[in-house]
Amino acid sequence: MNDIRKVIAIIGGTGGLGSALAFRLGNAGYKILIGSRNNEKACISAEKINDRLGKEIAIGYNNREAAKLAEIIVLTIPFSNHNEIIEEVKEEVQGKIVVDTTVPLVPPKVSRVHLPSSGSIAKLAQEKLGQNVRLVSAFQNVAATSLDSEDNVKGEVLVCGNNLDARSEVISLIESIGLKGWHAGPIDNSVVTESLTPVLIFLNKRYKLSGSGISIVEH
Amino acid sequence: MNDIRKVIAIIGGTGGLGSALAFRLGNAGYKILIGSRNNEKACISAEKINDRLGKEIAIGYNNREAAKLAEIIVLTIPFSNHNEIIEEVKEEVQGKIVVDTTVPLVPPKVSRVHLPSSGSIAKLAQEKLGQNVRLVSAFQNVAATSLDSEDNVKGEVLVCGNNLDARSEVISLIESIGLKGWHAGPIDNSVVTESLTPVLIFLNKRYKLSGSGISIVEH
Repeated sequence: MNDIRKVIAIIGGTGGLGSALAFRLGNAGYKILIGSRNNEKACISAEKINDRLGKEIAIGYNNREAAKLAEIIVLTIPFSNHNEIIEEVKEEVQGKIVVDTTVPLVPPKVSRVHLPSSGSIAKLAQEKLGQNVRLVSAFQNVAATSLDSEDNVKGEVLVCGNNLDARSEVISLIESIGLKGWHAGPIDNSVVTESLTPVLIFLNKRYKLSGSGISIVEH
Repeated sequence: MNDIRKVIAIIGGTGGLGSALAFRLGNAGYKILIGSRNNEKACISAEKINDRLGKEIAIGYNNREAAKLAEIIVLTIPFSNHNEIIEEVKEEVQGKIVVDTTVPLVPPKVSRVHLPSSGSIAKLAQEKLGQNVRLVSAFQNVAATSLDSEDNVKGEVLVCGNNLDARSEVISLIESIGLKGWHAGPIDNSVVTESLTPVLIFLNKRYKLSGSGISIVEH
Protein backbone atom coordinates (compact mmCIF):
# COMPACT_ATOMS: atom_id res chain seq x y z
CA MET A 1 0.00 0.00 0.00
CA ASN A 2 2.82 2.37 0.92
CA ASP A 3 4.60 3.03 -2.38
CA ILE A 4 7.42 5.36 -1.45
CA ARG A 5 7.80 6.57 -5.00
CA LYS A 6 4.39 8.24 -4.94
CA VAL A 7 4.33 11.91 -5.86
CA ILE A 8 2.65 14.16 -3.30
CA ALA A 9 1.61 17.77 -3.86
CA ILE A 10 1.47 19.99 -0.79
CA ILE A 11 -0.89 22.82 -1.72
CA GLY A 12 -0.06 25.79 0.50
CA GLY A 13 3.29 24.09 1.01
CA THR A 14 5.12 27.28 1.94
CA GLY A 15 3.20 27.64 5.24
CA GLY A 16 4.01 26.12 8.62
CA LEU A 17 2.10 22.84 8.39
CA GLY A 18 2.84 22.47 4.67
CA SER A 19 6.60 22.86 5.09
CA ALA A 20 6.66 20.51 8.06
CA LEU A 21 4.71 17.80 6.21
CA ALA A 22 6.87 18.26 3.11
CA PHE A 23 9.98 17.80 5.25
CA ARG A 24 8.70 14.63 6.94
CA LEU A 25 7.27 13.11 3.75
CA GLY A 26 10.40 13.98 1.75
CA ASN A 27 12.48 12.39 4.47
CA ALA A 28 10.33 9.24 4.17
CA GLY A 29 11.12 9.00 0.44
CA TYR A 30 8.09 10.58 -1.21
CA LYS A 31 8.64 12.97 -4.08
CA ILE A 32 7.25 16.36 -3.03
CA LEU A 33 5.71 19.08 -5.15
CA ILE A 34 5.40 22.30 -3.16
CA GLY A 35 2.37 24.23 -4.42
CA SER A 36 1.87 27.94 -3.85
CA ARG A 37 0.06 30.81 -5.56
CA ASN A 38 3.52 32.29 -5.99
CA ASN A 39 5.77 30.01 -8.01
CA GLU A 40 8.94 31.71 -6.79
CA LYS A 41 8.01 31.24 -3.13
CA ALA A 42 7.25 27.58 -3.86
CA CYS A 43 10.71 27.12 -5.40
CA ILE A 44 12.44 28.76 -2.43
CA SER A 45 10.52 26.50 -0.01
CA ALA A 46 11.40 23.42 -2.06
CA GLU A 47 15.06 24.39 -2.07
CA LYS A 48 15.08 24.82 1.71
CA ILE A 49 13.69 21.31 2.13
CA ASN A 50 16.23 19.84 -0.28
CA ASP A 51 19.04 21.60 1.59
CA ARG A 52 17.74 20.36 4.92
CA LEU A 53 17.38 16.78 3.69
CA GLY A 54 20.58 16.81 1.60
CA LYS A 55 18.73 15.37 -1.41
CA GLU A 56 16.71 16.67 -4.34
CA ILE A 57 13.25 15.50 -3.30
CA ALA A 58 11.09 18.67 -3.59
CA ILE A 59 10.22 20.96 -6.50
CA GLY A 60 8.18 24.18 -6.45
CA TYR A 61 5.13 24.81 -8.67
CA ASN A 62 2.02 26.89 -8.70
CA ASN A 63 -0.91 25.18 -6.96
CA ARG A 64 -2.66 24.00 -10.08
CA GLU A 65 0.48 22.55 -11.70
CA ALA A 66 1.46 20.80 -8.47
CA ALA A 67 -2.02 19.25 -8.22
CA LYS A 68 -1.87 18.17 -11.87
CA LEU A 69 1.47 16.37 -11.55
CA ALA A 70 0.80 14.63 -8.21
CA GLU A 71 -0.94 11.38 -7.29
CA ILE A 72 -1.90 12.52 -3.79
CA ILE A 73 -2.77 16.16 -3.05
CA VAL A 74 -2.52 17.52 0.49
CA LEU A 75 -4.26 20.82 1.26
CA THR A 76 -2.48 22.82 3.99
CA ILE A 77 -4.25 26.12 3.53
CA PRO A 78 -5.98 28.68 5.75
CA PHE A 79 -9.74 28.39 6.24
CA SER A 80 -10.19 31.77 4.54
CA ASN A 81 -8.66 30.45 1.27
CA HIS A 82 -10.29 27.02 1.31
CA ASN A 83 -13.13 27.72 -1.07
CA GLU A 84 -10.98 29.50 -3.62
CA ILE A 85 -8.24 26.86 -3.69
CA ILE A 86 -10.73 24.00 -3.96
CA GLU A 87 -12.06 25.69 -7.11
CA GLU A 88 -8.50 26.29 -8.36
CA VAL A 89 -7.43 22.63 -8.18
CA LYS A 90 -10.80 20.96 -8.79
CA GLU A 91 -10.11 19.77 -12.33
CA GLU A 92 -6.58 18.58 -11.59
CA VAL A 93 -7.51 16.40 -8.61
CA GLN A 94 -10.25 14.33 -10.29
CA GLY A 95 -9.70 10.60 -9.72
CA LYS A 96 -7.08 11.24 -7.03
CA ILE A 97 -6.75 11.24 -3.25
CA VAL A 98 -7.08 14.69 -1.67
CA VAL A 99 -6.05 15.06 1.98
CA ASP A 100 -7.74 18.02 3.63
CA THR A 101 -6.06 19.33 6.80
CA THR A 102 -8.06 22.56 7.04
CA VAL A 103 -9.36 23.78 10.40
CA PRO A 104 -12.18 26.35 10.54
CA LEU A 105 -10.31 28.74 12.85
CA VAL A 106 -11.90 32.17 13.05
CA PRO A 107 -9.47 34.81 14.43
CA PRO A 108 -9.27 36.35 16.93
CA LYS A 109 -11.18 33.72 18.95
CA VAL A 110 -9.11 30.73 17.85
CA SER A 111 -9.76 28.76 21.04
CA ARG A 112 -13.51 28.67 20.41
CA VAL A 113 -15.17 26.27 17.97
CA HIS A 114 -16.80 27.96 14.97
CA LEU A 115 -18.23 25.34 12.65
CA PRO A 116 -19.27 26.35 9.16
CA SER A 117 -22.94 25.87 8.34
CA SER A 118 -22.11 22.67 6.46
CA GLY A 119 -20.77 21.24 9.77
CA SER A 120 -17.40 20.10 8.40
CA ILE A 121 -14.98 21.75 5.97
CA ALA A 122 -13.79 18.40 4.62
CA LYS A 123 -17.37 17.30 3.97
CA LEU A 124 -17.92 20.52 2.05
CA ALA A 125 -14.72 19.87 0.06
CA GLN A 126 -15.98 16.36 -0.81
CA GLU A 127 -19.25 17.84 -2.04
CA LYS A 128 -17.52 20.51 -4.12
CA LEU A 129 -14.91 18.20 -5.66
CA GLY A 130 -17.45 15.46 -6.43
CA GLN A 131 -17.56 11.72 -5.81
CA ASN A 132 -14.71 11.03 -8.24
CA VAL A 133 -12.28 12.49 -5.70
CA ARG A 134 -11.40 10.33 -2.69
CA LEU A 135 -11.34 12.95 0.02
CA VAL A 136 -9.58 12.13 3.30
CA SER A 137 -9.45 14.41 6.33
CA ALA A 138 -6.36 14.27 8.58
CA PHE A 139 -3.58 16.14 10.44
CA GLN A 140 -5.78 18.83 12.04
CA ASN A 141 -4.63 17.94 15.56
CA VAL A 142 -0.87 17.78 15.18
CA ALA A 143 1.14 20.94 15.77
CA ALA A 144 3.20 22.11 12.77
CA THR A 145 6.12 22.94 15.07
CA SER A 146 6.19 19.36 16.37
CA LEU A 147 6.07 17.91 12.85
CA ASP A 148 8.82 20.26 11.77
CA SER A 149 11.19 18.86 14.39
CA GLU A 150 12.89 15.50 14.15
CA ASP A 151 11.43 14.40 17.47
CA ASN A 152 8.75 11.79 17.96
CA VAL A 153 5.24 13.22 17.83
CA LYS A 154 2.99 11.84 20.58
CA GLY A 155 -0.28 13.17 19.20
CA GLU A 156 -2.19 10.70 17.06
CA VAL A 157 -4.06 11.33 13.80
CA LEU A 158 -7.75 10.56 13.30
CA VAL A 159 -8.36 9.84 9.61
CA CYS A 160 -11.86 10.29 8.12
CA GLY A 161 -13.12 9.63 4.62
CA ASN A 162 -15.77 7.69 2.77
CA ASN A 163 -13.28 5.52 0.82
CA LEU A 164 -11.60 2.79 2.89
CA ASP A 165 -8.64 2.28 0.52
CA ALA A 166 -7.90 6.00 0.43
CA ARG A 167 -8.02 6.13 4.25
CA SER A 168 -5.65 3.16 4.41
CA GLU A 169 -3.25 4.82 1.99
CA VAL A 170 -3.21 8.00 4.08
CA ILE A 171 -2.65 5.96 7.25
CA SER A 172 0.38 4.31 5.56
CA LEU A 173 1.67 7.76 4.71
CA ILE A 174 1.14 8.90 8.34
CA GLU A 175 2.95 5.83 9.64
CA SER A 176 5.83 6.40 7.22
CA ILE A 177 6.54 9.71 8.98
CA GLY A 178 6.46 8.17 12.46
CA LEU A 179 2.93 8.98 13.61
CA LYS A 180 0.01 6.80 14.64
CA GLY A 181 -3.06 7.02 12.38
CA TRP A 182 -6.56 5.71 13.12
CA HIS A 183 -9.46 4.89 10.80
CA ALA A 184 -12.05 7.25 12.28
CA GLY A 185 -15.00 6.70 9.95
CA PRO A 186 -16.76 8.55 7.14
CA ILE A 187 -16.11 12.15 6.14
CA ASP A 188 -19.04 13.27 8.35
CA ASN A 189 -16.83 12.40 11.33
CA SER A 190 -14.25 14.99 10.31
CA VAL A 191 -16.21 17.50 12.36
CA VAL A 192 -14.44 16.02 15.40
CA THR A 193 -10.88 16.75 14.28
CA GLU A 194 -11.82 20.13 12.84
CA SER A 195 -13.46 21.23 16.08
CA LEU A 196 -10.80 19.68 18.30
CA THR A 197 -8.08 22.12 17.19
CA PRO A 198 -9.60 25.19 18.92
CA VAL A 199 -9.94 23.05 22.08
CA LEU A 200 -6.26 22.05 21.86
CA ILE A 201 -5.37 25.74 21.47
CA PHE A 202 -7.47 26.42 24.59
CA LEU A 203 -5.60 23.68 26.48
CA ASN A 204 -2.22 25.05 25.34
CA LYS A 205 -3.10 28.47 26.76
CA ARG A 206 -4.84 27.28 29.93
CA TYR A 207 -2.23 24.70 30.94
CA LYS A 208 0.83 26.33 29.31
CA LEU A 209 1.49 23.31 27.10
CA SER A 210 4.01 23.70 24.28
CA GLY A 211 1.61 21.86 21.98
CA SER A 212 -1.16 19.43 22.87
CA GLY A 213 -2.62 16.55 20.91
CA ILE A 214 -4.73 13.51 21.64
CA SER A 215 -4.09 9.84 21.91
CA ILE A 216 -6.67 7.08 21.88
CA VAL A 217 -6.75 4.93 25.02
CA GLU A 218 -8.59 1.71 25.79
CA HIS A 219 -10.44 1.81 29.10
CA MET B 1 -14.13 23.67 46.01
CA ASN B 2 -14.88 19.97 46.41
CA ASP B 3 -17.47 19.85 49.17
CA ILE B 4 -18.19 16.17 49.59
CA ARG B 5 -21.51 16.86 51.29
CA LYS B 6 -22.98 18.36 48.12
CA VAL B 7 -26.22 16.83 46.92
CA ILE B 8 -26.19 15.63 43.32
CA ALA B 9 -29.24 14.65 41.28
CA ILE B 10 -28.68 12.17 38.48
CA ILE B 11 -31.55 12.72 36.05
CA GLY B 12 -32.00 9.54 34.05
CA GLY B 13 -30.14 7.86 36.88
CA THR B 14 -31.59 4.42 36.22
CA GLY B 15 -29.71 4.09 32.89
CA GLY B 16 -26.18 2.81 32.26
CA LEU B 17 -24.19 6.04 32.56
CA GLY B 18 -26.47 7.39 35.28
CA SER B 19 -26.11 4.33 37.51
CA ALA B 20 -22.36 4.22 36.96
CA LEU B 21 -21.90 7.90 37.86
CA ALA B 22 -24.21 7.52 40.86
CA PHE B 23 -22.10 4.60 42.07
CA ARG B 24 -18.78 6.46 41.69
CA LEU B 25 -20.07 9.73 43.13
CA GLY B 26 -21.81 7.95 46.02
CA ASN B 27 -18.57 6.11 46.70
CA ALA B 28 -16.76 9.48 46.80
CA GLY B 29 -19.12 10.71 49.52
CA TYR B 30 -21.66 12.77 47.60
CA LYS B 31 -25.32 12.39 48.49
CA ILE B 32 -27.11 11.07 45.40
CA LEU B 33 -30.68 11.65 44.26
CA ILE B 34 -31.60 9.23 41.50
CA GLY B 35 -34.14 10.88 39.19
CA SER B 36 -36.42 8.97 36.86
CA ARG B 37 -39.80 9.47 35.25
CA ASN B 38 -40.82 6.43 37.23
CA ASN B 39 -40.41 6.99 40.94
CA GLU B 40 -40.47 3.28 41.71
CA LYS B 41 -37.67 2.52 39.25
CA ALA B 42 -35.65 5.36 40.77
CA CYS B 43 -36.08 3.88 44.26
CA ILE B 44 -35.02 0.42 43.09
CA SER B 45 -31.90 1.89 41.44
CA ALA B 46 -31.05 3.86 44.57
CA GLU B 47 -31.42 0.75 46.70
CA LYS B 48 -29.06 -1.20 44.42
CA ILE B 49 -26.41 1.50 44.80
CA ASN B 50 -26.82 1.57 48.56
CA ASP B 51 -26.50 -2.22 48.70
CA ARG B 52 -23.41 -2.12 46.52
CA LEU B 53 -21.75 0.61 48.59
CA GLY B 54 -22.93 -0.72 51.95
CA LYS B 55 -24.20 2.72 52.97
CA GLU B 56 -27.37 4.79 52.58
CA ILE B 57 -26.14 7.40 50.12
CA ALA B 58 -28.77 7.34 47.34
CA ILE B 59 -32.52 8.05 47.31
CA GLY B 60 -34.96 7.73 44.38
CA TYR B 61 -37.25 10.53 43.20
CA ASN B 62 -39.03 11.63 40.10
CA ASN B 63 -36.88 13.86 37.86
CA ARG B 64 -38.40 17.14 38.91
CA GLU B 65 -38.21 16.42 42.64
CA ALA B 66 -34.61 15.22 42.33
CA ALA B 67 -33.66 18.41 40.47
CA LYS B 68 -35.45 20.53 43.07
CA LEU B 69 -33.64 19.01 46.05
CA ALA B 70 -30.13 18.92 44.53
CA GLU B 71 -27.35 21.49 44.28
CA ILE B 72 -25.80 19.98 41.15
CA ILE B 73 -27.94 18.29 38.50
CA VAL B 74 -26.40 15.77 36.11
CA LEU B 75 -28.38 14.87 32.95
CA THR B 76 -27.72 11.30 31.80
CA ILE B 77 -30.52 10.97 29.30
CA PRO B 78 -30.94 9.79 25.72
CA PHE B 79 -30.75 12.38 22.94
CA SER B 80 -34.38 11.64 22.06
CA ASN B 81 -35.59 12.76 25.51
CA HIS B 82 -33.30 15.74 25.92
CA ASN B 83 -35.72 18.46 24.92
CA GLU B 84 -38.56 17.13 27.03
CA ILE B 85 -36.47 16.65 30.19
CA ILE B 86 -34.87 20.09 29.87
CA GLU B 87 -38.41 21.52 29.93
CA GLU B 88 -39.38 19.25 32.84
CA VAL B 89 -36.57 20.39 35.14
CA LYS B 90 -36.13 23.96 33.87
CA GLU B 91 -37.70 25.73 36.84
CA GLU B 92 -36.00 23.55 39.43
CA VAL B 93 -32.44 24.04 38.15
CA GLN B 94 -32.41 27.85 38.08
CA GLY B 95 -29.31 29.24 39.83
CA LYS B 96 -27.65 25.80 39.90
CA ILE B 97 -24.97 23.87 38.04
CA VAL B 98 -26.35 21.50 35.38
CA VAL B 99 -23.96 18.92 33.92
CA ASP B 100 -25.07 17.76 30.48
CA THR B 101 -23.60 14.44 29.32
CA THR B 102 -25.92 14.00 26.32
CA VAL B 103 -24.55 12.73 23.00
CA PRO B 104 -26.56 13.25 19.80
CA LEU B 105 -26.44 9.59 18.73
CA VAL B 106 -28.89 8.76 15.97
CA PRO B 107 -29.56 4.98 15.70
CA PRO B 108 -28.90 2.89 13.75
CA LYS B 109 -25.78 4.74 12.50
CA VAL B 110 -24.24 5.40 15.91
CA SER B 111 -20.67 5.49 14.58
CA ARG B 112 -21.42 8.47 12.36
CA VAL B 113 -21.58 12.06 13.62
CA HIS B 114 -25.04 13.66 13.37
CA LEU B 115 -24.95 17.14 14.84
CA PRO B 116 -28.20 18.91 15.58
CA SER B 117 -28.76 22.14 13.68
CA SER B 118 -27.73 24.13 16.75
CA GLY B 119 -24.29 22.47 16.53
CA SER B 120 -24.12 21.33 20.13
CA ILE B 121 -26.76 19.84 22.43
CA ALA B 122 -25.21 21.41 25.50
CA LYS B 123 -25.21 24.83 23.87
CA LEU B 124 -28.89 24.34 23.10
CA ALA B 125 -29.51 23.34 26.72
CA GLN B 126 -27.76 26.51 27.92
CA GLU B 127 -29.99 28.59 25.64
CA LYS B 128 -33.16 26.84 26.78
CA LEU B 129 -32.35 26.96 30.50
CA GLY B 130 -31.18 30.58 30.38
CA GLN B 131 -28.11 32.40 31.67
CA ASN B 132 -29.07 31.86 35.31
CA VAL B 133 -28.10 28.20 34.96
CA ARG B 134 -24.37 27.39 34.90
CA LEU B 135 -24.33 24.68 32.26
CA VAL B 136 -21.29 22.41 32.05
CA SER B 137 -20.76 19.71 29.43
CA ALA B 138 -18.80 16.60 30.41
CA PHE B 139 -18.56 12.77 30.48
CA GLN B 140 -19.55 12.14 26.84
CA ASN B 141 -16.36 10.21 26.09
CA VAL B 142 -16.15 7.81 29.01
CA ALA B 143 -17.80 4.41 28.66
CA ALA B 144 -20.52 3.67 31.22
CA THR B 145 -19.24 0.11 31.61
CA SER B 146 -15.79 1.41 32.58
CA LEU B 147 -17.23 3.86 35.09
CA ASP B 148 -19.39 1.13 36.55
CA SER B 149 -16.35 -0.98 37.38
CA GLU B 150 -13.98 -0.27 40.23
CA ASP B 151 -11.00 -0.13 37.86
CA ASN B 152 -9.06 2.96 36.90
CA VAL B 153 -10.51 4.75 33.87
CA LYS B 154 -7.82 5.84 31.42
CA GLY B 155 -10.03 8.06 29.27
CA GLU B 156 -9.96 11.72 30.26
CA VAL B 157 -12.86 14.18 30.47
CA LEU B 158 -13.00 17.44 28.51
CA VAL B 159 -15.15 19.94 30.44
CA CYS B 160 -16.83 22.83 28.61
CA GLY B 161 -18.94 25.66 29.94
CA ASN B 162 -19.10 29.44 30.02
CA ASN B 163 -18.69 29.73 33.80
CA LEU B 164 -15.17 29.09 35.08
CA ASP B 165 -16.17 28.35 38.69
CA ALA B 166 -18.79 25.84 37.56
CA ARG B 167 -16.25 24.11 35.32
CA SER B 168 -13.78 23.98 38.23
CA GLU B 169 -16.45 22.50 40.50
CA VAL B 170 -17.23 19.79 37.92
CA ILE B 171 -13.51 19.05 37.49
CA SER B 172 -13.23 18.58 41.29
CA LEU B 173 -16.15 16.18 41.09
CA ILE B 174 -14.46 14.30 38.21
CA GLU B 175 -11.20 14.07 40.14
CA SER B 176 -13.03 12.83 43.24
CA ILE B 177 -14.08 9.75 41.27
CA GLY B 178 -10.57 9.06 40.00
CA LEU B 179 -10.67 10.60 36.51
CA LYS B 180 -8.67 13.38 34.90
CA GLY B 181 -10.71 16.44 33.87
CA TRP B 182 -9.59 19.32 31.64
CA HIS B 183 -10.91 22.85 31.27
CA ALA B 184 -11.80 22.74 27.55
CA GLY B 185 -13.30 26.18 27.01
CA PRO B 186 -16.75 27.70 26.50
CA ILE B 187 -19.94 25.75 25.89
CA ASP B 188 -19.46 26.21 22.11
CA ASN B 189 -16.54 23.76 22.39
CA SER B 190 -18.86 21.01 23.60
CA VAL B 191 -19.39 20.10 19.94
CA VAL B 192 -16.04 18.27 20.19
CA THR B 193 -17.00 15.88 22.96
CA GLU B 194 -20.51 15.37 21.58
CA SER B 195 -19.17 14.44 18.14
CA LEU B 196 -16.27 12.40 19.48
CA THR B 197 -18.51 9.67 20.89
CA PRO B 198 -19.60 8.29 17.46
CA VAL B 199 -15.91 8.26 16.46
CA LEU B 200 -15.02 6.29 19.61
CA ILE B 201 -17.82 3.84 18.77
CA PHE B 202 -16.32 3.54 15.27
CA LEU B 203 -12.87 2.84 16.77
CA ASN B 204 -14.32 0.23 19.16
CA LYS B 205 -15.83 -1.65 16.21
CA ARG B 206 -12.93 -1.21 13.76
CA TYR B 207 -10.16 -2.11 16.21
CA LYS B 208 -12.17 -4.42 18.49
CA LEU B 209 -11.53 -2.28 21.56
CA SER B 210 -13.53 -3.01 24.70
CA GLY B 211 -14.06 0.75 25.11
CA SER B 212 -11.98 3.63 23.81
CA GLY B 213 -11.46 7.10 25.16
CA ILE B 214 -8.99 9.93 24.68
CA SER B 215 -6.14 11.35 26.64
CA ILE B 216 -4.44 14.68 26.09
CA VAL B 217 -0.73 14.48 25.28
CA GLU B 218 1.91 17.17 25.01
CA HIS B 219 3.96 16.91 21.83
